[in-house]
Amino acid sequence: MIDPIEIGDVRPRAPGGEFPAKAVAARSVRVSADIFKDGHSVLAAQVLWRPMNGQWTAVRMAAGANYRWWADFQPEVIGPHEYKVQAWTDHFMTWQRDVAIKHEAGQDISVELEEGAALIELSALEMEPSKRPRYREVVATLRDESLGFAERLAATGKSFVTELFADSPLRHDLSSSRPMPVWVDRERALYSSWYELFPRSLGGFMGTVEHLPRVAGMGFDVLYLPPIHPIGATARKGRNNAVTHEPDDVGSPWAIGSKLGGHTAIHPDLGTIDDFHALVDQAAEHGLEIALDYALQCSVDHPWVAEHPEWFHHRPDGSIKFAENPPKKYQDIVPINFWPSTDRSRSELWDACKQILDYWIAHGVKIFRVDNPHTKPLAFWAWLIPAVQIKHPEVIFLAEAFTHPKMMAQLAEIGFTQSYTYFTWRTHKQELTDYLNELAYGPTADYMRPNFWPNTPDILSGPLRGGGPGVFKQRLVLAATMAPSYGIYSGYELMENEPARPTDEEYLFSEKYEIKHRDFDLPGNLVGFVTRINELRRQHRALRQLRNIRFHHADNSQLIVYSKATHDLSDVVLVVVNLDPGGVQEGLIELDAAALGVDPTRPYTATDGLTWTEYTWTGNTPFVRLDGADQPAHILHITQIT
Amino acid sequence: MIDPIEIGDVRPRAPGGEFPAKAVAARSVRVSADIFKDGHSVLAAQVLWRPMNGQWTAVRMAAGANYRWWADFQPEVIGPHEYKVQAWTDHFMTWQRDVAIKHEAGQDISVELEEGAALIELSALEMEPSKRPRYREVVATLRDESLGFAERLAATGKSFVTELFADSPLRHDLSSSRPMPVWVDRERALYSSWYELFPRSLGGFMGTVEHLPRVAGMGFDVLYLPPIHPIGATARKGRNNAVTHEPDDVGSPWAIGSKLGGHTAIHPDLGTIDDFHALVDQAAEHGLEIALDYALQCSVDHPWVAEHPEWFHHRPDGSIKFAENPPKKYQDIVPINFWPSTDRSRSELWDACKQILDYWIAHGVKIFRVDNPHTKPLAFWAWLIPAVQIKHPEVIFLAEAFTHPKMMAQLAEIGFTQSYTYFTWRTHKQELTDYLNELAYGPTADYMRPNFWPNTPDILSGPLRGGGPGVFKQRLVLAATMAPSYGIYSGYELMENEPARPTDEEYLFSEKYEIKHRDFDLPGNLVGFVTRINELRRQHRALRQLRNIRFHHADNSQLIVYSKATHDLSDVVLVVVNLDPGGVQEGLIELDAAALGVDPTRPYTATDGLTWTEYTWTGNTPFVRLDGADQPAHILHITQIT
Repeated sequence: MIDPIEIGDVRPRAPGGEFPAKAVAARSVRVSADIFKDGHSVLAAQVLWRPMNGQWTAVRMAAGANYRWWADFQPEVIGPHEYKVQAWTDHFMTWQRDVAIKHEAGQDISVELEEGAALIELSALEMEPSKRPRYREVVATLRDESLGFAERLAATGKSFVTELFADSPLRHDLSSSRPMPVWVDRERALYSSWYELFPRSLGGFMGTVEHLPRVAGMGFDVLYLPPIHPIGATARKGRNNAVTHEPDDVGSPWAIGSKLGGHTAIHPDLGTIDDFHALVDQAAEHGLEIALDYALQCSVDHPWVAEHPEWFHHRPDGSIKFAENPPKKYQDIVPINFWPSTDRSRSELWDACKQILDYWIAHGVKIFRVDNPHTKPLAFWAWLIPAVQIKHPEVIFLAEAFTHPKMMAQLAEIGFTQSYTYFTWRTHKQELTDYLNELAYGPTADYMRPNFWPNTPDILSGPLRGGGPGVFKQRLVLAATMAPSYGIYSGYELMENEPARPTDEEYLFSEKYEIKHRDFDLPGNLVGFVTRINELRRQHRALRQLRNIRFHHADNSQLIVYSKATHDLSDVVLVVVNLDPGGVQEGLIELDAAALGVDPTRPYTATDGLTWTEYTWTGNTPFVRLDGADQPAHILHITQIT
Repeated sequence: MIDPIEIGDVRPRAPGGEFPAKAVAARSVRVSADIFKDGHSVLAAQVLWRPMNGQWTAVRMAAGANYRWWADFQPEVIGPHEYKVQAWTDHFMTWQRDVAIKHEAGQDISVELEEGAALIELSALEMEPSKRPRYREVVATLRDESLGFAERLAATGKSFVTELFADSPLRHDLSSSRPMPVWVDRERALYSSWYELFPRSLGGFMGTVEHLPRVAGMGFDVLYLPPIHPIGATARKGRNNAVTHEPDDVGSPWAIGSKLGGHTAIHPDLGTIDDFHALVDQAAEHGLEIALDYALQCSVDHPWVAEHPEWFHHRPDGSIKFAENPPKKYQDIVPINFWPSTDRSRSELWDACKQILDYWIAHGVKIFRVDNPHTKPLAFWAWLIPAVQIKHPEVIFLAEAFTHPKMMAQLAEIGFTQSYTYFTWRTHKQELTDYLNELAYGPTADYMRPNFWPNTPDILSGPLRGGGPGVFKQRLVLAATMAPSYGIYSGYELMENEPARPTDEEYLFSEKYEIKHRDFDLPGNLVGFVTRINELRRQHRALRQLRNIRFHHADNSQLIVYSKATHDLSDVVLVVVNLDPGGVQEGLIELDAAALGVDPTRPYTATDGLTWTEYTWTGNTPFVRLDGADQPAHILHITQIT
């Protein structure tokens, strides 16, 4: 039989209900549900939550519009949690509401008063004896026919009467949702600033150590390294992805494995495992975490190919099948066959894949950027990620899920902590607005966390190709203020903008295939701008969350306007970006004052965190003017003048 | 472990997955699902469906846009069914696609041809021996190095090769959704035309028999009678819902029960059980089914009140609690307490409620209009409806769920066949458009079936109050052509339009409290119009479904334009309604020619089923002009001139 009270559409949840929704420790989780029953009784509801196998904590829910109830709870530890929603009929509140209406309408309420007395009498029996006398007094007053209705009724107005029922274990029609799983991550799972670099271009791990002050100085907190393993010699790619290579070509780090080792070995040019420890430790001293690439594919020279031929696809001529997407061939890479013919082989392979992670976790790595997860079975990830996180709940997985939306969402649902997104290709006002609203409020919001990248070593995206400082600043501001997690690939701050071909997203002389020497002190670079953006992200709690973004209207289709505010409106940031790198755009913008927590009839200040200019505005339609070629954004801290 | 292939968002389904989606026998059910896996292999999918515990039937699915797959199946019998979606990797199709691309690109495909030969060889072993030789021949050709690539490849183009794999039991990565329940109703559950009348106003059952030719003549197929049971004497309501009654007042039929009996008794003024049989039988001869009211409430005089005091709420002064919604009191009705204090009482009460239905089903009734289901527990309905339908799958329950949207949807989800809707109050173009799109394509579409009523004995809705023929025709056309099920309450065809008070939806001299004598031959009545509308509903299969409605644009906000077409476009109806009863509205309308199945560059005819006028149109922006005060609608049959 179903419960007397309907508790439906309980959020947060992942669509299937099998995998957990995601939350962050020390941040509140908003639980909501449709709660209703037949008739007109007053209902009460609560959320019960706990770390898995821990003690339940109860939080009372409040009723919002349209039978939607909500409550917040705040997990303090990371790892698996669960919650459920309970509802019951509150006979006393129902009585109190109805008797008040009848009394106001001048009706005889003597029988109702007796009903109330009986209710209180019954519930008081559940209280400890010392607390009962005051209830007996209320009951006596309710039954005292020498008093008027109003006076008798007033006796129930005392707060201890309300508390009696709030705390009472007598919960009529008690109904419950099923337990809903929630995975609680550390804060960096949601709020992180990534910087990607190729250590081989900096002289290996020890050379990279020397760059830590620079990267940390810009305000990043995650330093992501492409694969650091030996690179295959067979069919190695040359510069600019050439099919043949010269003797001195270094090859793509994603062609993993040589006679020197595979996914747990280090490329000799980068250093030793001790050098790697030094890098991890030094990075930590600078507030930086090292993120490694987890790319489950092999060069033909990878030790696995000889040791475990059953983990690869074979062809009738005895050769190992290399990667291809007909008619394209990727001769330097062989894909792993995640479904070998026997279950034992499968189990050994999957364990071997997990052991790679175990190895690097043991060496201090807690963040993995996962290469092309959509080309490996969902079942593999659904097994792997919980298997790792149950021992190491601090481990973060970023999915390089540049694939179709349903697969992207599915990877997030089955366990990936964060995901690359389509932000890289969203450039127009409407598409940015729609995409952000979808990410923040759409069906994936409970379990998919975006990480916005204006560029990657694979993608010099449209507007950046041949672009100047304006567009590089614009895309950085959008990524860093729209999403709590974002990242850039080294060279962005130098405005590297040359594509391999006019219609190609690949960089010319891509660092994937050769060593790059950069002058990071190049005049006119964006280091100061990047540093300031990351400073503002640290200063403003409002920028460290996703599901608080609100768009505001601007008639000018090149001006995009959005705000983020903390729940208590103590920190409010308004961002205005000129999307036109061609020059000046201006116009009135139309602010939703409530979202900014200001009274627009009185003056308020908007202080630009980029220029330190302070504007004083009254009303909700200020005029803005931004030069897209040079200074394309305002990042405004909004405060009412008191 | 999760399946290798993701099969997600499988439709049709009810939200919780516990209760069945709804379908109709001899009409196709569209199943769809998101189906994808890692990598680029070609997938295949099928729907397996069966009547519960019957044989599974397989239907191959086709891939639509964005990884959404679909297939149709057609249940033939009513009752519980289930289906599931299966998907697998089609290695042969993958091979065929890839080898063709490589061959076109001029690559060496000798190893690929051997791969294909091996695949065919393996699969042919699964075939019966007599069919194997032709495959051996193909394999030999594939391996014949004396032939060119093109010739060898062509050998696999034969249809029996494709069939080999389509029928093969070798299904790699075979994955399956869970079984999804579907309840299959008879067609009347979806497509029905209701007429409501009070038999006491027509002289009881035998008097009603005399009106059957009139009701059937108008084209209705369900004749719904308000409660036919003895009416309580205590606190009986007088005319116009007066709190006191005169000796000759007949009382509300919803105050069920007197010393003469309760829900299985017949009011003596209406006739005997034999008369009732006569009515049911005669109605059937006219193609009409009798629908009874199932109103689970009692007058104080109902036998249950004395026999089963535990089934009612009692007050401290010993009285039985009558219905109220403070400060309003309904002294002629006592509500049932569906949760008596013991489980045994509850079980006896629920059984007694079911026995009412069993009784009337045994007397030939198969349709019940359920009064205020939202004031009884959802758990009760979730138990009752399946308990009845498992023995009598032909029984239809219409929910009078005039309540909030979430409750309305929930009642549909747990089992109600049809539901009254908000159509009664949707009068503007935008709200009608939004509401119909929600009902036809929104989240409730898989399990909630609307029944549109322009009026009921309780509701003389806004536009009808004081309205003339134009608005009565308009609301009828909207109800009867937007929804496959609709109904009117007697008097509509006479354009009865006097409200009890100017701001009230109650009728003046409501038939709920008195006997009405009507002259059904009143000049200027809408009998002919109603008859024609129901004729058009019978003629046009397109009007007998909901999920085919498409709205077309019209600049004039008083002109609403929509079409319905059968899947094969063999029957296409375009409806244009002038929503302004004040007079003429005209303008260009903008037709979506694809939805109408016409080529707008060539002439097509639009034949008005109401006026028999035939228009010849070319292009997709015809001009229309309708007089809302008189003839407010076109119901146009669209056919291309060939």
